[in-house]
Amino acid sequence: MKILILGGAGMVGRKLAERLAGDGRLGGIPISRVVLHDIVMPAAPKGATFQVECLASDFSLPGGAERLVASRPDVIFHLAAIVSGEAEADFEKGYRINLDGTRMLFDAIRRIGDGYHPRVVFTSSIAVFGAPFPEAIGDEFFNTPLTSYGTQKTIGELLLADYTRKGFFDGIGIRLPTICVRPGLPNKAASGFFSNICREPLAGKEAVLPVSEEVRHWHASPRAAVGFLVHGATIDTAKVGPRRNLTMPGLSCTVGEQIEALRRVGGDKVVARIRRQPDPVIEKIVAGWPRNFDARRAVALGFRAEATFDEILKVHVEDELGGQIA
Amino acid sequence: MKILILGGAGMVGRKLAERLAGDGRLGGIPISRVVLHDIVMPAAPKGATFQVECLASDFSLPGGAERLVASRPDVIFHLAAIVSGEAEADFEKGYRINLDGTRMLFDAIRRIGDGYHPRVVFTSSIAVFGAPFPEAIGDEFFNTPLTSYGTQKTIGELLLADYTRKGFFDGIGIRLPTICVRPGLPNKAASGFFSNICREPLAGKEAVLPVSEEVRHWHASPRAAVGFLVHGATIDTAKVGPRRNLTMPGLSCTVGEQIEALRRVGGDKVVARIRRQPDPVIEKIVAGWPRNFDARRAVALGFRAEATFDEILKVHVEDELGGQIA
Repeated sequence: MKILILGGAGMVGRKLAERLAGDGRLGGIPISRVVLHDIVMPAAPKGATFQVECLASDFSLPGGAERLVASRPDVIFHLAAIVSGEAEADFEKGYRINLDGTRMLFDAIRRIGDGYHPRVVFTSSIAVFGAPFPEAIGDEFFNTPLTSYGTQKTIGELLLADYTRKGFFDGIGIRLPTICVRPGLPNKAASGFFSNICREPLAGKEAVLPVSEEVRHWHASPRAAVGFLVHGATIDTAKVGPRRNLTMPGLSCTVGEQIEALRRVGGDKVVARIRRQPDPVIEKIVAGWPRNFDARRAVALGFRAEATFDEILKVHVEDELGGQIA
Repeated sequence: MKILILGGAGMVGRKLAERLAGDGRLGGIPISRVVLHDIVMPAAPKGATFQVECLASDFSLPGGAERLVASRPDVIFHLAAIVSGEAEADFEKGYRINLDGTRMLFDAIRRIGDGYHPRVVFTSSIAVFGAPFPEAIGDEFFNTPLTSYGTQKTIGELLLADYTRKGFFDGIGIRLPTICVRPGLPNKAASGFFSNICREPLAGKEAVLPVSEEVRHWHASPRAAVGFLVHGATIDTAKVGPRRNLTMPGLSCTVGEQIEALRRVGGDKVVARIRRQPDPVIEKIVAGWPRNFDARRAVALGFRAEATFDEILKVHVEDELGGQIA
């Protein structure tokens, strides 16, 4: 089993590689080789028993995608993307990487053409949806993205479904919830505070909450996200049918519910590290985001997320803090 | 008022040019110039009081779109496309014209960039939907096309909405129903019989009906289609909001209802010219098509189609047969 991960230097790509290194197999088949690719050099996961190759290049340049698929990986995880804020700020770059890059990858697979038919797992996003929303967004709600990133992800989904239908590969699109708790440093993404108000206080540091406690959002842990990708790589796609893009399960909860879970997991001293500092700009951005889904197709297909925010916090404490709360 | 029509040699483009020639104005403003463009040379409409230029070229070649928009038309009708059957048979050509060509056009407009902000009316299709469907497809039903053509049209819709949101132009996407009665010769399109069984008998000729009378479909006349485009070119898009792609109103009726309308309009002798010759291949293709919509947004925005199949037939008799039934 040969695996290619595009976007291998990102948080999800890195955690996916670590999971594969720990498992040693995918879908019961021993992994012989994993190629990690990104625009910056990815790090090899520790403890892998299979061969690991790390590559840095721009896969949207001519010939770039061809070189990556020439070794005919059995499973390709396509996690590479210009993120939302940058795709909005740099229109041409967003389309070049997120649309052209994705299409070049898909075409490179198609052009091999001699029966090569890999599984392609594509990470999409809840940014494919645009307000106004129903109370819970169902599996048949339409895609009217309100960002260039969301537009590019929706186009990637459509290409994935059409290339799959034509028999060029066996694709599945995974619409990730917001990943919480994101490890690492606080970032300036408008969504950053959902993680910041958990991660920083659990590590003994102060965090800023820029919105009201009534704000509701849609979460899954990094561990759940990796689980979605692994399940997407191994699921019997005959059961998925032609509608290849799936909203993943997640947890819809308010910031207030996040904070109460934090109190149960870490106590009052942890919660006291959250400083309320309302930011009308962030309030406004967040108001346009999806906050709840009814992801019954993915659940019926065996995708699993956390059922409570306490679980999400416990995953973070286990996976990132070695079980220790500050 | 300067107007550019891409796809000006097609049936809808030709009828649009004739309508503009008859009106002399668009949205109350006198038309000074119309450019008709297609891959084959379009014909100038008769009786135009404005300047008409007819051009033939491949707008998906480098520089092609730039040349077309360099004269800064105020309204651009983008009707050019590789049709469904050809896009399915020639995968690369379909993507090159329907996706790359559309994007090149949109980018050519964007790159002018000095405040140029034309209205762009894009013809999409009910092929953006894929079975299974609800009883009537509502305005918020998702796009899961089952053809490359439908995929390309959906991508065009997404680009139109994003380029509009970014302020590069003022776009509106018009999802046309099946056009009935199509003038001209019977063609081999799987949908051809819906028109053939009307047009041929009304002209004294025999037509083949390959499906059962229970088959239901979604129709509007060529005159209504042109009306959609003109309304799309002149509507106050502030009322449309960010969801720029609209399912047009139409008439949902069965083949049996078509035939009874034909009897009312043309009598038994006309209906007797329909020969039933079931074709399981066509039956199967048609079974996957949308058959009914609840297009309430477009109706609320003032788009109008025929309310009965009798009206659709009368439009054909007036516009194509000079009022004479054979």
